[in-house]
Amino acid sequence: MNSLGTLFRLEIFGESHGPAVGVLIDGCPAGLPLAVADFEPDLARRRAGAAGTTPRREADIPEVVSGLFEGHTTGTPLLILFRNEDTRPGDYGLFRRMPRPGHADLSGAIRYGGWNDPRGSGHFSGRVTAGLVAAGVVAKKLLPGVGFSTRVLEAGGLTDVEAALREAAEAGDSVGGLVELRVAGLRPGLGEPFFGSVEGLLAQAFFAVPGVRGVEFGDGFAAARMRGSAHNDPIVSRDGRTSRNGAGGLNGGITNGNELVCRVAVKPPSSIARSQTTYDFRADAEGSLAIGGRHDACIALRAAVALEAAAAVVLADLALMAETHAFAPARKEQP
Amino acid sequence: MNSLGTLFRLEIFGESHGPAVGVLIDGCPAGLPLAVADFEPDLARRRAGAAGTTPRREADIPEVVSGLFEGHTTGTPLLILFRNEDTRPGDYGLFRRMPRPGHADLSGAIRYGGWNDPRGSGHFSGRVTAGLVAAGVVAKKLLPGVGFSTRVLEAGGLTDVEAALREAAEAGDSVGGLVELRVAGLRPGLGEPFFGSVEGLLAQAFFAVPGVRGVEFGDGFAAARMRGSAHNDPIVSRDGRTSRNGAGGLNGGITNGNELVCRVAVKPPSSIARSQTTYDFRADAEGSLAIGGRHDACIALRAAVALEAAAAVVLADLALMAETHAFAPARKEQP
Amino acid sequence: MNSLGTLFRLEIFGESHGPAVGVLIDGCPAGLPLAVADFEPDLARRRAGAAGTTPRREADIPEVVSGLFEGHTTGTPLLILFRNEDTRPGDYGLFRRMPRPGHADLSGAIRYGGWNDPRGSGHFSGRVTAGLVAAGVVAKKLLPGVGFSTRVLEAGGLTDVEAALREAAEAGDSVGGLVELRVAGLRPGLGEPFFGSVEGLLAQAFFAVPGVRGVEFGDGFAAARMRGSAHNDPIVSRDGRTSRNGAGGLNGGITNGNELVCRVAVKPPSSIARSQTTYDFRADAEGSLAIGGRHDACIALRAAVALEAAAAVVLADLALMAETHAFAPARKEQP
Amino acid sequence: MNSLGTLFRLEIFGESHGPAVGVLIDGCPAGLPLAVADFEPDLARRRAGAAGTTPRREADIPEVVSGLFEGHTTGTPLLILFRNEDTRPGDYGLFRRMPRPGHADLSGAIRYGGWNDPRGSGHFSGRVTAGLVAAGVVAKKLLPGVGFSTRVLEAGGLTDVEAALREAAEAGDSVGGLVELRVAGLRPGLGEPFFGSVEGLLAQAFFAVPGVRGVEFGDGFAAARMRGSAHNDPIVSRDGRTSRNGAGGLNGGITNGNELVCRVAVKPPSSIARSQTTYDFRADAEGSLAIGGRHDACIALRAAVALEAAAAVVLADLALMAETHAFAPARKEQP
Repeated sequence: MNSLGTLFRLEIFGESHGPAVGVLIDGCPAGLPLAVADFEPDLARRRAGAAGTTPRREADIPEVVSGLFEGHTTGTPLLILFRNEDTRPGDYGLFRRMPRPGHADLSGAIRYGGWNDPRGSGHFSGRVTAGLVAAGVVAKKLLPGVGFSTRVLEAGGLTDVEAALREAAEAGDSVGGLVELRVAGLRPGLGEPFFGSVEGLLAQAFFAVPGVRGVEFGDGFAAARMRGSAHNDPIVSRDGRTSRNGAGGLNGGITNGNELVCRVAVKPPSSIARSQTTYDFRADAEGSLAIGGRHDACIALRAAVALEAAAAVVLADLALMAETHAFAPARKEQP
Repeated sequence: MNSLGTLFRLEIFGESHGPAVGVLIDGCPAGLPLAVADFEPDLARRRAGAAGTTPRREADIPEVVSGLFEGHTTGTPLLILFRNEDTRPGDYGLFRRMPRPGHADLSGAIRYGGWNDPRGSGHFSGRVTAGLVAAGVVAKKLLPGVGFSTRVLEAGGLTDVEAALREAAEAGDSVGGLVELRVAGLRPGLGEPFFGSVEGLLAQAFFAVPGVRGVEFGDGFAAARMRGSAHNDPIVSRDGRTSRNGAGGLNGGITNGNELVCRVAVKPPSSIARSQTTYDFRADAEGSLAIGGRHDACIALRAAVALEAAAAVVLADLALMAETHAFAPARKEQP
Repeated sequence: MNSLGTLFRLEIFGESHGPAVGVLIDGCPAGLPLAVADFEPDLARRRAGAAGTTPRREADIPEVVSGLFEGHTTGTPLLILFRNEDTRPGDYGLFRRMPRPGHADLSGAIRYGGWNDPRGSGHFSGRVTAGLVAAGVVAKKLLPGVGFSTRVLEAGGLTDVEAALREAAEAGDSVGGLVELRVAGLRPGLGEPFFGSVEGLLAQAFFAVPGVRGVEFGDGFAAARMRGSAHNDPIVSRDGRTSRNGAGGLNGGITNGNELVCRVAVKPPSSIARSQTTYDFRADAEGSLAIGGRHDACIALRAAVALEAAAAVVLADLALMAETHAFAPARKEQP
Repeated sequence: MNSLGTLFRLEIFGESHGPAVGVLIDGCPAGLPLAVADFEPDLARRRAGAAGTTPRREADIPEVVSGLFEGHTTGTPLLILFRNEDTRPGDYGLFRRMPRPGHADLSGAIRYGGWNDPRGSGHFSGRVTAGLVAAGVVAKKLLPGVGFSTRVLEAGGLTDVEAALREAAEAGDSVGGLVELRVAGLRPGLGEPFFGSVEGLLAQAFFAVPGVRGVEFGDGFAAARMRGSAHNDPIVSRDGRTSRNGAGGLNGGITNGNELVCRVAVKPPSSIARSQTTYDFRADAEGSLAIGGRHDACIALRAAVALEAAAAVVLADLALMAETHAFAPARKEQP
């Protein structure tokens, strides 16, 4: 089940070395201006995320196959494709025989009974997030007045991210990274208690980005060590503004009008030049695997824009749902 | 939208001081033995979570209204109710006028246009998790051979949880807590890449438990500071066993046959005796709020069994879905 | 999967001789005035549908367990229960041994592996539609200005419905019936092409009412025998009014602003006093079954209000979804 | 919302004169053998449905963009595209100005605020059913031992369908048609009572096919005029076989092991050479519209294979769901 959303729904598809990857968006309202050029900034951020490594070169030109007419969305399903060009068949059999530690080579093969496409990680490739990034571009158009601010706070424990990457690359190794997202301008009242909480929906979307290992909102894990008197955000205005933001803009699963703040932990990539122990299924014994060729030293860099897109997609869906809240008039009394 | 799941689906409902809270489960297979006594151990764990405080006294006797016949599930929707008995109308208007910092009093009122039930936090009450706990009891029956181990690792930063609660109570304050869940015996191959990842589905369910601020799997946030050579788990056997478990039993969103390990951060409760600053909507100015009466000093204690139930519900759904994976035979070659 | 709807979602539950039947509604907007008395007219229509027979006597008093506060919906899940009172345990084993021809006794037992509740047809009982009727009452509140007109056009082929019932009852037999629904005042533009068509969603809901064997819109089956020049409705005004209504108010799956018209065929009940051939599983041979006791001679009478409720539920969901259509402005040019 | 299904889920997309139409299938099990040639027989039936008219010429060569590897499905989303080749821009403005009676020109424009693609009916075109037909081909692979038999029983009221088409074409008119589907070999126990009934799910899928106005099962509308003693099917064997099949293989929404039989009424096409009255939005007055060029005289012919595909898709989804029924053992006693 690769779909997400209730009203603004998307499904990503494709394999790294198949004909294409992309996204199908259903429920996008009609009349949004949309041009191929609109996708370029976020796609460029995704490409730039490969800085410091020898990246796969993809033109990343989106092909809008349906749902667009005369420069506007039509309201019918919007299919966006990215053709795969720089595919290199190579010896993909290696990772079937010796699955990468920390990767989905083995779990994915078990899940699909061995039928999944193993070339370049197949459907498990980070390349599939191109479709998610494209959906984020569309979603942001449904969030006028909302500003996203996303950055990599640290990599491998260093705030000097470039240094961390350089050192890891020199060591034939990879590093994890920490991404922070801030979303300003959200209306209060988005989300639901329990299973429709903003946190829960965002987390589900964040964990869709390969390599994510943790998600926290506001004070996050630090809140587990705090006292209420320190954690609780004093409300200082009629419109719900608080003097600190330990809740990250969310109470009871619902936006409270303050900035939404969250952090996402991304693990280091599995493919490294250094030798790793794994099982050699042909030899039926432990073996040693060193992986040459191109691969990212820190996927948090590319993941950042995908995480932002994931957030945009969820928030756009909630914003559409909130249109229906207006059905009943608000009570006269406060709040 | 308060529902969860694809095949084993549940919806929780109810208000703290309304007639009842509970859960409706759809898609539960027929023929599971189920008795009222089966619910008692987990319900008792939930009640015990209020240790150190003066808890609300509820008999917590589940009433199975539908879907049960001669001691077995019938396969039709299963409705489980918990009547509210110890309700105290009280002056619920206070928190409308002066919403608690860190609580959903204000965001909830905005979300529902002021129409939500404010008595005892209404639908935002932790009491609503009784339904979730009941669903977890049913879900565990769909996971034979699977063992759950859940504990509060620390409260307020202390591993001596009782001390932390005592100190907080003495200070008229509350504390957050950190919960760890371990699930052993899961078959490999559960879950999907991207939006159907085990991590994403579990996180959505965990964030449904009031007070959760962060979720991490395996090395979690620590992985963001690690190198791949240290984080990646060496595979040491044909069945995918690894010599460490930094992935927490999950690769590419899919169980890998090792123990599933995750941690959940729970914030300190909002209701404390100490005075807090909030907005007084009647005075139209900042005001001071001190909350008397019964309330938990650390909701992580009660949350633990609810989080375990949330995990069970998600994993039972995935286990049912995995029944359909068998449609196609596995490829002969490994894996 | 006993749920219906995207934004206004409901799930019906219960067994005929279990503790209760009812409905859980999720996504109902907050602030709708709702009182127990509001349900009575439609529940009375459902009871009156048993005219001419010796009906089961149920007080049919709805108990609103959650989602209601001070006479208004709260926006959180709304649970409505109808306690079963007039249950008669009886010898329900008979229909396990000799399943009624035309009934779900056998198919239901196969579906649920024999675990389903067989007492009074269990979950397959028409009694479960009480929950659907209650949901319809709530749904109609979301459709201001919309008028429903539902009637039984004929029973057993006769327009004198009472005569048909009397004759059938005298013969120890039952009759089918034809129900027509007309819905006036719907805004144009509800629904979607393909899987979200108004026809498809309504049909899914109609077939949920026990005994429905056919659904048609506008000219319906007659259209299959017509020519386009006769069937196509001339458009005679700027707002889309047509001079005839062979489309039943729907083009391309979408409301066109004219009256929505459909007809539903309901089969005769299975339980009749006349002897019927069925398989006797104990004797392992064909046997003869004559059914005494109370049962409806024509379920179309009771079904009418349930069908109307089903329509209201679907249309309320579509009306909520249409709130989001307004996101983008309409093009300036016609239409 | 253009999606269908719970486990085997599909979404169709595309516009008649856009780059392509197609389908995205999620949840298709891995390991199904699938080749481009597999699609040809059903696609050919769809093309042949245009007999007697001057059809649009499309090569209809499916492009499998994702989810296929080495001739087998991978278990990940399967995207199938049909490029549009024979597009003729033409003066599509005509039907915006003068919407065709009986067509979605006007209702569709209202639904999408005028932003939908009007060229060749856009997303409302029958061409979009190519994706549905392709999904049907995949779905049938999930139904081994199940046989579909679909035929046009009559057109324009005549059983000599060719004569009906010839006469209509000569009169510059179109005709409706009646399609019958028979499905043999289904296991008993598929489906659910109420909203998950086989009838309801099939009807939702059937009404997705443009032009469908009515759906009936077994005796269908005739059942409304029958008595129970005549309609109820005597059960004559231990495995549920009946001596007649007035239920069309379905009791209580669930397959009973007998042949599934249904009929679908398809309206005559809207585009005819004969002059029709409609509203001229430019003149702001009633006007007269005669439509030249290629168009089908009877869409029931093309619809037949699309309806069969719709049935296959629904039944494959139910067959997958039934895999989970096996969780609990059947009761020992009958049935």
